[in-house]
Order: sequence, then structure tokens, then C-alpha cells
Amino acid sequence: MKADIINPFLVSIVNVLATMAQTEAKVGKPVLKRDNVGQGDVSGVIGLAGEQTKGSIAITFTDKAIIDIASKMLGEQLDTVDETVADMVGEITNMVTGGAKKILSEKGYKFNLATPTIIVGKGHMISHKSKAPVILLPFETSAGSFFVEICFDNFGVKQ
Amino acid sequence: MKADIINPFLVSIVNVLATMAQTEAKVGKPVLKRDNVGQGDVSGVIGLAGEQTKGSIAITFTDKAIIDIASKMLGEQLDTVDETVADMVGEITNMVTGGAKKILSEKGYKFNLATPTIIVGKGHMISHKSKAPVILLPFETSAGSFFVEICFDNFGVKQ
Repeated sequence: MKADIINPFLVSIVNVLATMAQTEAKVGKPVLKRDNVGQGDVSGVIGLAGEQTKGSIAITFTDKAIIDIASKMLGEQLDTVDETVADMVGEITNMVTGGAKKILSEKGYKFNLATPTIIVGKGHMISHKSKAPVILLPFETSAGSFFVEICFDNFGVKQ
Repeated sequence: MKADIINPFLVSIVNVLATMAQTEAKVGKPVLKRDNVGQGDVSGVIGLAGEQTKGSIAITFTDKAIIDIASKMLGEQLDTVDETVADMVGEITNMVTGGAKKILSEKGYKFNLATPTIIVGKGHMISHKSKAPVILLPFETSAGSFFVEICFDNFGVKQ
């Protein structure tokens, strides 16, 4: 069941970054997030909600990693985290969760996605308020690290 | 239509803070958020998603305001923003959006709520990635200010 949850997001983020930003993202060992270890500088957060399941997904980048990724997506060198970079994080969040939703939908898991919210702030911390544990997927790119946090309530319930 | 969106959230947050934290919240003039003006220290973010409508809601507090509110909710004086305060923000976010959902549902607007995500980080900024404008409701309490940001795509579509 854990792999059922993790793999669609893993596949989706690797695809999105390779296709949109010519960036190879190497995944580390998935861990259960027990506290606010996933500190970062820029995050895309999106909710998901169905009749039974609900949850939240966060993709949290360091400044360095997201400036590099956004620069590659736009084809021009950016220097700082600004509204353009926030827009790119919104795009990435939509694409990754949209891709994962498609895979999960084919497996019988039905839910709708909310709209993404982007948080910019040096070293912010994220907590997911849910009954379920949070799965943290750490990634490395040539420009630095990022995390994907996945939190689903009642994921086992197919609709 | 704008009042249809705003009022359920306004009524709900005023009720929740009065009931749970004996705190009177005075609302200021609602404005359209054009940039990242809603800086704060602790935010609760929640997605909502239906077949047609989707969106995101953020409730953003200053440290001072949320420490005061959380202390009153718990009946003990807190000094700092910690996991307990983050939990209270999650509770407030759930209660406010749950209350607003109930009112909106009675008016024929159907959607499901995701689970809340809490962001802690001094002076972080929030952007909502949606086609719709973001409505910002500023509030004042005796301990400081907070904001509620409301962002709905296709809100006009009743289901």
C-alpha cells in the first residue's frame, strides 16, 4: 500500500523535472516524517479531497535547487526567488500531483485536487495535520536537494 | 457572489475564535490580494476540491496573535510557536473551513475539504495559484492581526 502511494509521486516528479527542466532527480530512501525535518525555502502545497480520502502534498525546495530548476524551465538564468519562481513551483506542483492523480485514478483511487499554494520564506517548516503518517521522499539534484511530503487519510479506500 | 464567498468564512472565524479562544476578532475591509501582502509567521493552509470548483484557503497569523489565541484555547500561557501552537492552527483551520463548508453546502456549493498544512516561519509569504483573484480578509484582535485568504476557481458553479 505504501508503494501504491509513493510510486506515482516519485515517477511523476522525476518525469516533470526531466522533461520541463532537464534536471535529473535522484530519490533517497523514503522515511516517515515524525517532526518538522523538512525545512526549506520555497514550498508548493496542494490539498486533495474525495468522498473518502483526503490529504496534502508538499514539495519543498532549497533556494539554490529551485532557482536552478526554474532557470532551466524558463531558459534564462534567475538569481533570486521571486514571483516568477513561485509561479514555477505552482506549475511543478500542479504537474506532479496531476500526473500522480492520473496513475492513482487508474488504480481505482479517486479524489480531486485543490489549487496549489506557494510558500516563500527562508527555513520555513511544514506540518501536515492528518491522522495518517507523513511519508517524506528526499531527492537530490546537481543543484541541491528537495523533498516531497505525502499525507493521505483513508488512502486504502478505493471508490 | 463575492459576499456569498466571503460571509461564510467571516462568520465562521469570528464564531470559532469567540467560542474556542474567547477572542473577539474585528474584520477590516476585504480587499483583492494583488501580491504577497499577507506576510505572517504561522499559517494554516487547506485545499478544497469538488467536481467543478477548487481552491485554497489560508489563515495567517502573527506570532503574537497566535500565541495569545492558542494560550486561550488551551487555558495555559504559551511563550513560543511550537508544535502545540501548530496543532491549534490546524484545529482552527479545520473548524473555520468546516463551518464555512456547511454554510456553503446549504447554498448549493458542493466541495470536499483536504487536510490542513501548517507553515511556521518568520515573515513567510503565500501565493495562491489559481485563475481566480484572492480575497483577503484582514482581522484585528486585542493581541494582534491575522488574515484569511480565500481563493476559489469556478465558485459560481453550483452542483
